[in-house]
Amino acid sequence: MSSTSPKARKFGSRGQPEATREAILRAASTEFAMEGLAGARMDAIARAAHVNKALLYYYFHDKDALYGAVLDQFLRPLFSRLSEVLDGSASPGEKILGYALAHFDTIAGAPHYASLFQSEMMSAGRGVSPHLGEMVERYARPVFVRLQATLKEGVENGQFRQIDILQFIPSMVATIVFYFVAAPMLRRLRGFEPFSPQAIRSRRVAVLDHIAAALFTDREEGLRLAAQLAESEASPTAIPQPATHHRVAARRTK
Amino acid sequence: MSSTSPKARKFGSRGQPEATREAILRAASTEFAMEGLAGARMDAIARAAHVNKALLYYYFHDKDALYGAVLDQFLRPLFSRLSEVLDGSASPGEKILGYALAHFDTIAGAPHYASLFQSEMMSAGRGVSPHLGEMVERYARPVFVRLQATLKEGVENGQFRQIDILQFIPSMVATIVFYFVAAPMLRRLRGFEPFSPQAIRSRRVAVLDHIAAALFTDREEGLRLAAQLAESEASPTAIPQPATHHRVAARRTK
Repeated sequence: MSSTSPKARKFGSRGQPEATREAILRAASTEFAMEGLAGARMDAIARAAHVNKALLYYYFHDKDALYGAVLDQFLRPLFSRLSEVLDGSASPGEKILGYALAHFDTIAGAPHYASLFQSEMMSAGRGVSPHLGEMVERYARPVFVRLQATLKEGVENGQFRQIDILQFIPSMVATIVFYFVAAPMLRRLRGFEPFSPQAIRSRRVAVLDHIAAALFTDREEGLRLAAQLAESEASPTAIPQPATHHRVAARRTK
Repeated sequence: MSSTSPKARKFGSRGQPEATREAILRAASTEFAMEGLAGARMDAIARAAHVNKALLYYYFHDKDALYGAVLDQFLRPLFSRLSEVLDGSASPGEKILGYALAHFDTIAGAPHYASLFQSEMMSAGRGVSPHLGEMVERYARPVFVRLQATLKEGVENGQFRQIDILQFIPSMVATIVFYFVAAPMLRRLRGFEPFSPQAIRSRRVAVLDHIAAALFTDREEGLRLAAQLAESEASPTAIPQPATHHRVAARRTK
């Protein structure tokens, strides 16, 4: 290859397959986040990843397969971290609040994935998602089962009040993720930037506070534990960042 | 007009403008809920509403204007009901739980609008929503202001614990609305139908329970009030139903 401009360089099909694959996934996650599944275009992704279109199709059979791979790249590290938190030897209360923190920090570290995931739920609502079933079985179910067991343990040992466990889980997840989905509305309503580091820090404290207040038998104990955990530094799960995150952020503020 | 089949009848531009407008809005809400804003097609809407396409454009200048009118038809009665609840003379605790119940019942009575609204948030996240600003100013802000005032009153008179009001509002709204957005995932995870009357009744109780547990200084008082209110019959806000709701429901279960 004689090209000297890194921008113009096209990845070949030999030599660096992993790097090529990653470049494609980075470009694709940006394109899907900005345009949605229906609006995303394969040639725009190929251009942004500096690969030719034939190679793109060689790596990922079609747009749907590429979309699935982008989702997978986010969900695999997220759910492995969440499982880890719930498998520890801490008390049920520490595990549940630790779960909430890890879930929140992961999304806060890669907020563009929240809209990808949201889009997937909407397609599923219309009966047109080819990925939901697989995502649920591979990732969501193992975490759901651990959450149920942890909540059950806490109710039985008296640390948690008598809750309806199957209802508490969606309420807790709602508190964690809804902020990111509702960000455009909050931006307008409150005239602030919901993704600023200061706003994310405040929300992080509030999420733990809210969950603890609703869950612990001894509410004061829960709120103390929540405040203590929320003081810890966020350690986001390593999620690949989109190729040009500032483009997404710039579009968002319009 | 000599046609005797009501299905084949085309509404004229004179005579029943309100009926024509309503028929278009009903057909459009179904089409938008099933296909999303990008995928919805004006000729499919015209066909379903039994009007010709020229008349459709005469009533609604373009797809965007029609989409705005569909959103408006849902949001106007919803927010007028929510404001009413918050303007009453009840205690802050009764008002907040009454708000949650009215918000939940309205969405439960027209769940296809949840995905419309979700779609709007996602467009806004990508900076391409022409409607969000107007929706916020006309509907969301007046309710947001009333919620803030009611929560402030409750914190000051001691009925509510010391919460961060601006954070509590999105957490509460999350608990109310997230279930409807997450329904496709819950359907898979739990192998049940989240929109069945039984499932909606259970969720309704759980939403009030969760909010009360997180909010009231005297949690037992809050839980008693929540249980008492949740026993009341749901009285959904009158929201126009889509033309062929069963089609949406059928697609949903795939």
